[in-house]
Amino acid sequence: MPPRIVQVRQGLLKKNDAIAAALRADFAAAGTFVVNLVSGPGTGKTLLLERTLSALRDRGRRPAALVGDLATDNDAVRLARSGAPVRQINTHGLCHLEADMVGRHLQGWNLAEHNYLFVENVGNLVCTASYDLGESLRVVLLSVTEGEDKPLKYPTLFNTADAAIITKCDLATACEFDSAEAERNLRAVRPGLPIVSLSAKTGDGMDEWLAFLESRRGSEG
Amino acid sequence: MPPRIVQVRQGLLKKNDAIAAALRADFAAAGTFVVNLVSGPGTGKTLLLERTLSALRDRGRRPAALVGDLATDNDAVRLARSGAPVRQINTHGLCHLEADMVGRHLQGWNLAEHNYLFVENVGNLVCTASYDLGESLRVVLLSVTEGEDKPLKYPTLFNTADAAIITKCDLATACEFDSAEAERNLRAVRPGLPIVSLSAKTGDGMDEWLAFLESRRGSEG
Repeated sequence: MPPRIVQVRQGLLKKNDAIAAALRADFAAAGTFVVNLVSGPGTGKTLLLERTLSALRDRGRRPAALVGDLATDNDAVRLARSGAPVRQINTHGLCHLEADMVGRHLQGWNLAEHNYLFVENVGNLVCTASYDLGESLRVVLLSVTEGEDKPLKYPTLFNTADAAIITKCDLATACEFDSAEAERNLRAVRPGLPIVSLSAKTGDGMDEWLAFLESRRGSEG
Repeated sequence: MPPRIVQVRQGLLKKNDAIAAALRADFAAAGTFVVNLVSGPGTGKTLLLERTLSALRDRGRRPAALVGDLATDNDAVRLARSGAPVRQINTHGLCHLEADMVGRHLQGWNLAEHNYLFVENVGNLVCTASYDLGESLRVVLLSVTEGEDKPLKYPTLFNTADAAIITKCDLATACEFDSAEAERNLRAVRPGLPIVSLSAKTGDGMDEWLAFLESRRGSEG
């Protein structure tokens, strides 16, 4: 990249980091555990989030969600069916969420009323990596339909993740997906990365995912 | 986006467009039909390209390929098995290919020896839209595993495409994929878009794709 755009970009990233740090302090003060869900398009972020919001509400938690897309509010409409408060962030073509978009879309919500806030990022396996949203946990999704090699070919985002979920496991056999190889590749990029395999469609692995979330939230408080 | 970065970005895009225009003139002079394959990660670009290169060689064509990734040369190694000349473009973390990367990686090749040049872009359903690579045909892949709504949620790239391929059709039933809805959504964003459905794995639909390519190449000459 030419020096001039690198300079402008670093200035923007610095500004984003400052807003993210302020958000993180607000989230901590309110006791809200924030999860940033990142992945390429079509890995099943919305279905996972729909099932996660419902399951947490069944356990007496009070989750909320922000959902980012370049266009449409399809996902917010769909997620609202869980009963949790949900807002759409329309990026109008921008390829990632930024901290100030998150901050603006929280206005009017009392964070202290929510144990969890999920932020579903734009489907982009590259550009979302550079933007801290003030989250406690960045979770990257890898779908069995994408192939085992994605962590090696898109290392940046996987390298910034705190946990990985292998999604759509019900399709693993049809896709000839090699779980052991995928986990090896994930940990080659990010040693020690916690990995949960699940299918939001069948429910397999959801208990492990929810237990992981609850234990991480507990260790924050 | 702040005015300053918009200005710098527009300057870069203008520079890219100038390089792309020069490449396009070179390709036309050499009689090389250039296809830019774009999509999110994991839609099956590499397998489709592998099968396409082999099938075109079987028909006496002389295709070559450039393949873009943030890291690794896995795809170039894999594609070279087809017998076609293949080079890897490693973007070192950049989220899209640019025209000057294409130009630099063509050095030493005699374009006139190749009827086709395929460029496999970085897996990114957003940022690849803005960068003309001098191609004759921009083909966007939508996998049945990604869901029918992707054209509506990521309209920019679909709107710049000259054709769409619905991939991994062997998984359509397992994914409860609604083909008619996907085609409606594709054409809502890009009216009149030619669409081919195929499975590179089973071979279904490959003949239609190859016939489409050959007819487009023919109409160029």
